[in-house]
Amino acid sequence: MTVDAKSPAMSLADMDAFLDRDFPQLNRDGRAYVVEAVGYGTSRMRMLYHERHLRPGGTISGPAMMGLADLAFYVAILGAIGPVALAVTTNLSINFLRKPGRRDLIADCRMLKLGKRLAVGEVLLFSDGEEEPSAHVTGTYSIPPRANG
Amino acid sequence: MTVDAKSPAMSLADMDAFLDRDFPQLNRDGRAYVVEAVGYGTSRMRMLYHERHLRPGGTISGPAMMGLADLAFYVAILGAIGPVALAVTTNLSINFLRKPGRRDLIADCRMLKLGKRLAVGEVLLFSDGEEEPSAHVTGTYSIPPRANG
Amino acid sequence: MTVDAKSPAMSLADMDAFLDRDFPQLNRDGRAYVVEAVGYGTSRMRMLYHERHLRPGGTISGPAMMGLADLAFYVAILGAIGPVALAVTTNLSINFLRKPGRRDLIADCRMLKLGKRLAVGEVLLFSDGEEEPSAHVTGTYSIPPRANG
Amino acid sequence: MTVDAKSPAMSLADMDAFLDRDFPQLNRDGRAYVVEAVGYGTSRMRMLYHERHLRPGGTISGPAMMGLADLAFYVAILGAIGPVALAVTTNLSINFLRKPGRRDLIADCRMLKLGKRLAVGEVLLFSDGEEEPSAHVTGTYSIPPRANG
Repeated sequence: MTVDAKSPAMSLADMDAFLDRDFPQLNRDGRAYVVEAVGYGTSRMRMLYHERHLRPGGTISGPAMMGLADLAFYVAILGAIGPVALAVTTNLSINFLRKPGRRDLIADCRMLKLGKRLAVGEVLLFSDGEEEPSAHVTGTYSIPPRANG
Repeated sequence: MTVDAKSPAMSLADMDAFLDRDFPQLNRDGRAYVVEAVGYGTSRMRMLYHERHLRPGGTISGPAMMGLADLAFYVAILGAIGPVALAVTTNLSINFLRKPGRRDLIADCRMLKLGKRLAVGEVLLFSDGEEEPSAHVTGTYSIPPRANG
Repeated sequence: MTVDAKSPAMSLADMDAFLDRDFPQLNRDGRAYVVEAVGYGTSRMRMLYHERHLRPGGTISGPAMMGLADLAFYVAILGAIGPVALAVTTNLSINFLRKPGRRDLIADCRMLKLGKRLAVGEVLLFSDGEEEPSAHVTGTYSIPPRANG
Repeated sequence: MTVDAKSPAMSLADMDAFLDRDFPQLNRDGRAYVVEAVGYGTSRMRMLYHERHLRPGGTISGPAMMGLADLAFYVAILGAIGPVALAVTTNLSINFLRKPGRRDLIADCRMLKLGKRLAVGEVLLFSDGEEEPSAHVTGTYSIPPRANG
């Protein structure tokens, strides 16, 4: 992907500060999400293992997995276009592949298209330490018009 | 749909009792979900408006919408095959159409296919009182093998 | 849906003339597609049964089903905004439900959202005379900027 | 992926012979599809540029792109489980990213899950020589019960 070849529009520290300021509810019950890497159209996020993300049987719930993926897309888009515009999720499609374990969940995200109006990407979710993905997610985002866009 | 023509495998009261027993966490912080109707492969669910489902700006979050849809699919499948097997979500795909308001969210679900191994359905999500849907969701469920299946 | 409440932007005769002029390849090997109804954001299309749409076993092929659904979306969008802009398909997602028979295939389409930039709709595909759908399709379309948009 | 670590269940020559025998219609109007690589749950397919795959404007049509992706999934599944069972497509979801050029179209496929009952994979489609994908496709396949499965 050429999206990997450019430098990110925000550093890891900038991203942390941005999320803490604009999305304080993400970590309001204690730190839950960690930005581990951000690039131009890429991100790696970690969701710390916590009981509130579980469903019966001890599995991390589908909505919690979706929330992590959506956040990873958001960070990857910010990594490309900077903290300017508010991308709006228009579609999320999740294939659940294997039950995640009672461990942190990792989201590896890359954008496949970063257009002026639409961004499309994919996320693979992994239980920490596993090679096989727990889920595959595709996401589509509408990019609001920008003055210099 | 012929799925509407058969009688439901569980009554509304049975469904409430089943969910309260097997999914106590659904309403652990106060009643959050109400089964308003259940049929053979259909359901109507209400998610009571609550701050914990919000994201910045007061909109109900995507993961909360997905959680409601997933529950509506589950109830519709139980309404057809009864409280026997545990259906496993294999795919959820959501198109976000309009921002839901600060009101209850309604899920209208109908199954499009109820096969021996796979069930496929759709949910329309509406803000209470609105005619235009907030989101459209398709879901696929794997039905475990049954002794008499 | 309020999309049903408005009058269509094009009549059935106008739509036929438009498709014949702009998409002559649709019916180049003999009439294959018939617009049976068009409304504001709705359409009903028929694909005549023909051997060239088959795959081994005599079933209508997945790509032929997708092509019919894509055309139904296109007609439904034209029925709302008129023959002005060229909508671009950005996503198609198909759930195959039951094998269609050796008969005409019917597409019933309704748009769920007709925004300035994005249109989202769904199609149910039926074998002629069947009550149960052969496939369910969701589609997303990017609407190009218009002078008066 | 561990799916890459195992040896394929069919050689390239076996795959060609299998497709020629069981899907003669693929290349009935002249060679159209070439299997370039097959592995355990992976495949690389080429669709030769041909006017019959075009839509107005000279772009390769969406249904032709979907047909290529579906074939790539099929070959990747055969590469893992051999020419025994007939996998049935249950879902295809395509994100169209960039218009493909007037060139061959390449499909790079990898399966993300190869379960006993369900297989899930993804395909990236590229215009020959391009680095940026023209489309991303996810597919789900139902694997029929096997005697030794």
